[in-house]
Amino acid sequence: MQLDVEPVDIASRSPTVLLNEADAAELGAHPLDRVHVEHAGGTTVAIVELTDELVAPGVIGTTRRLASVRGTVEVSLAPTPASVRYIRKKLDDIELDAREFGRVVDDITEDRLADVELGAYVAAVYANGLSLQETMHLTECMADAGEVISWDRDVVADKHSIGGVAGNRVTPVLVPLVAAAGLTVPKTSSRAVTSAAGTADTMEVFCDVAFSREEVEEIVEEAGACIVWGGAVNLSPVDDKIIRAETPLSLDPPGQLIASVLSKKKSAGSTHVVIDIPYGEGAKVESLAEAREFAVDVRRVAEHIGLTVECAITRGSQPIGRGVGPALEARDVLATLDGAGPADLRLKSVRLADLLFESCGVDADATDLLDSGAARERFGAIVAAQGGDPDVSPGDLSVGRHTRVVHADRAGVVTHVDNRLVNDIARRAGAPKDTGAGIDLHCRVGDAVEAGEPLFTVHAEVPAKLDDAGSLVDGSEAVRVRGAQETLVERV
Amino acid sequence: MQLDVEPVDIASRSPTVLLNEADAAELGAHPLDRVHVEHAGGTTVAIVELTDELVAPGVIGTTRRLASVRGTVEVSLAPTPASVRYIRKKLDDIELDAREFGRVVDDITEDRLADVELGAYVAAVYANGLSLQETMHLTECMADAGEVISWDRDVVADKHSIGGVAGNRVTPVLVPLVAAAGLTVPKTSSRAVTSAAGTADTMEVFCDVAFSREEVEEIVEEAGACIVWGGAVNLSPVDDKIIRAETPLSLDPPGQLIASVLSKKKSAGSTHVVIDIPYGEGAKVESLAEAREFAVDVRRVAEHIGLTVECAITRGSQPIGRGVGPALEARDVLATLDGAGPADLRLKSVRLADLLFESCGVDADATDLLDSGAARERFGAIVAAQGGDPDVSPGDLSVGRHTRVVHADRAGVVTHVDNRLVNDIARRAGAPKDTGAGIDLHCRVGDAVEAGEPLFTVHAEVPAKLDDAGSLVDGSEAVRVRGAQETLVERV
Repeated sequence: MQLDVEPVDIASRSPTVLLNEADAAELGAHPLDRVHVEHAGGTTVAIVELTDELVAPGVIGTTRRLASVRGTVEVSLAPTPASVRYIRKKLDDIELDAREFGRVVDDITEDRLADVELGAYVAAVYANGLSLQETMHLTECMADAGEVISWDRDVVADKHSIGGVAGNRVTPVLVPLVAAAGLTVPKTSSRAVTSAAGTADTMEVFCDVAFSREEVEEIVEEAGACIVWGGAVNLSPVDDKIIRAETPLSLDPPGQLIASVLSKKKSAGSTHVVIDIPYGEGAKVESLAEAREFAVDVRRVAEHIGLTVECAITRGSQPIGRGVGPALEARDVLATLDGAGPADLRLKSVRLADLLFESCGVDADATDLLDSGAARERFGAIVAAQGGDPDVSPGDLSVGRHTRVVHADRAGVVTHVDNRLVNDIARRAGAPKDTGAGIDLHCRVGDAVEAGEPLFTVHAEVPAKLDDAGSLVDGSEAVRVRGAQETLVERV
Repeated sequence: MQLDVEPVDIASRSPTVLLNEADAAELGAHPLDRVHVEHAGGTTVAIVELTDELVAPGVIGTTRRLASVRGTVEVSLAPTPASVRYIRKKLDDIELDAREFGRVVDDITEDRLADVELGAYVAAVYANGLSLQETMHLTECMADAGEVISWDRDVVADKHSIGGVAGNRVTPVLVPLVAAAGLTVPKTSSRAVTSAAGTADTMEVFCDVAFSREEVEEIVEEAGACIVWGGAVNLSPVDDKIIRAETPLSLDPPGQLIASVLSKKKSAGSTHVVIDIPYGEGAKVESLAEAREFAVDVRRVAEHIGLTVECAITRGSQPIGRGVGPALEARDVLATLDGAGPADLRLKSVRLADLLFESCGVDADATDLLDSGAARERFGAIVAAQGGDPDVSPGDLSVGRHTRVVHADRAGVVTHVDNRLVNDIARRAGAPKDTGAGIDLHCRVGDAVEAGEPLFTVHAEVPAKLDDAGSLVDGSEAVRVRGAQETLVERV
């Protein structure tokens, strides 16, 4: 059916077209069906929505994702994509081969799958799991799907954390530290999904983080490293789409996670990667045994796709650093690069950097590079290359001036700091959008506290959001303090 | 956030609202997030899409599903619905209890689930199956979810086929036949999803089929029975939504199917139901053993919710009747009610009606009621009550005048008639939208044919669609003819 294109300004996530109901009936298309739209630039698959008035008969309304489609187009019902059959196969608990994963990844990349199908895909992978062989296939297919950066160097270093720990802003310390030893570190990071800040959100306090692939190459050429938002570089479009479907269901099956992390590193052109696997109560991996098993799988898949990977299993049952929220974490980062900072953040950054040096065969000492100011200097160079002020000082970082201090209601020992609650409170206070909002922790697990001693401070930029965060603080126990007697009772 | 409502004419399946990007950023809402819209009439959950131009800041664009929302509304981010946790639980292969199914059904009914979540639900039920206990819970919850009709009678008869067989238009023969014995039969039927015609499409050749619940009650009062489109009566809104998610993936897990069928019958106020379970190559159930197992589960769940059910396991490896497509099937129906018609359609209708009589404890004979003209008369009464001509004759039914006859390319025996291909060819020819389009079968499995003898005729209303159907005929073998020698070879 020939239709005239009329752009309609809707930014739906999927490539949606609006059809007049008369045309849709003629075509046999129902809402959410897929159609082929043949235009001068090629053929695009789009999802159908119906309208009576917004577009007239003979007209197809194209939403923003289809902005490049112009003129007169030929519209026909699109067949069910092949990968739907493979999703069903995976639901039947039959292993998929490399070719089948290739089709699935391709169809997700090209938006040929409707959301119900994408939901079924992540559900199938979660319910039936991926074998090591399948994880290898999927990782390869995902690495091939996006753009690939290739660096003119034998060794390109990188770092990744599987997440789940509040604060934990190791990357902005480690990347300049490693770069200061002469290694190339093209680091892409994410924004917060359910946490108070992603590394990209924290870096944005210092400088820009959204750059194209070409710009990233220039930044790395100039500063030896970058810390940019991965979403803008578009190295793993397929990964972003899968994560979008996993997020509402909080599904994060290990095989898919390994494929996601390693394919992204491969696409970024990295050769040597250290992967931080935090474990413990409230982290993504609960037990040490699980963490070890996961690490073994990561290394096997990495080997298969030609990546040298070191896994660092780290303690993840409480936040790392004092600050939680973009500016508060940025303050920790700057303090650590200046040779001070929270002890746990400094130690973790140094340990992971030394592991990476060893893996890359570089004779360098992370502690020296930090204490000599070399890491701080390199951080300035990265910030400058990304359009920020290299001489930024802690006083330049403004934290939310509306505060509430939470005190211990008894004397005792801090037995738990809840990662998830800390993130949730910081988000209620406005993080990550209000960059100054978040939480400043004044204690750590194992600290002895007196009754009335401050445990943490909530910062907000807007009074109403402080109240909002406060109501969550009142109904929960982000920092758990237990008296000596209670501790004894717990020793059973 | 307070926003002014501005209706936007888009008929998306989910209740979608358009937010200006500035407002969405302020709210922290991403595309496909859910928001609470508090309005004068209550609170509605809606799915977010973003726009820069279509609605201004301060305005919320409401699509057609939200037409009743007017004035100024309070918009806030909606929390993740509880059922998302239960979907995840089901993915972990943990049984859900009655309360949990209640929440799932409730959230699906109220459109609180995004499509990725709905896809994960049907995937979870498919991958991990439903226990008999779970099927009972689900059936009860689904029966309670929609409207329920209650009839002032002890016995209300009904019939259902689990489908998969082309033609097979038993319902319009059986319903008047059973009603002629004095039984009440409030039959709701579906339109075609992947077949050439649903019962509702075929009945529409004779009369209207879209009626409200109140109208259905009047029709049944008048004619003792009805044959209407279930979609308009809205007895099982939740079932329609689940089927929509199952269709693209061709998922039809037995437990969900049982819950779907039985909850619908319960909502329709039926007390005694005969369920047709066709089995065989190309049917939904492949083997007799599977069909029996399915029938046992159906009866157990039916007993649990207080329905008397008889299951009829029938042969489903080839179409029933000669015609496939609305008018062609209508012609078979009329011929059968007139005492002639295809032998298989007549026999199946009589057998299922007698089973229903026995189940209801009614002393009646289906063959007599058919041959005496009582069933034909009652059919006329139903058609009249639904606004059609009770004296319709076969000559009034116009079938597509553009035809192509397909001949046997050899002498031999018909060994297979492919349900799916027959449906696909009829759909290419224009069915069900072009009511006269479809296929007229001239042979059945077991018939001896000469080379060049006609096997079937394709009917279309539009020449281009006949060509379209023809190209599928050429590339496939809807009716398989094998020579005697070949048959011997196959006996290995």
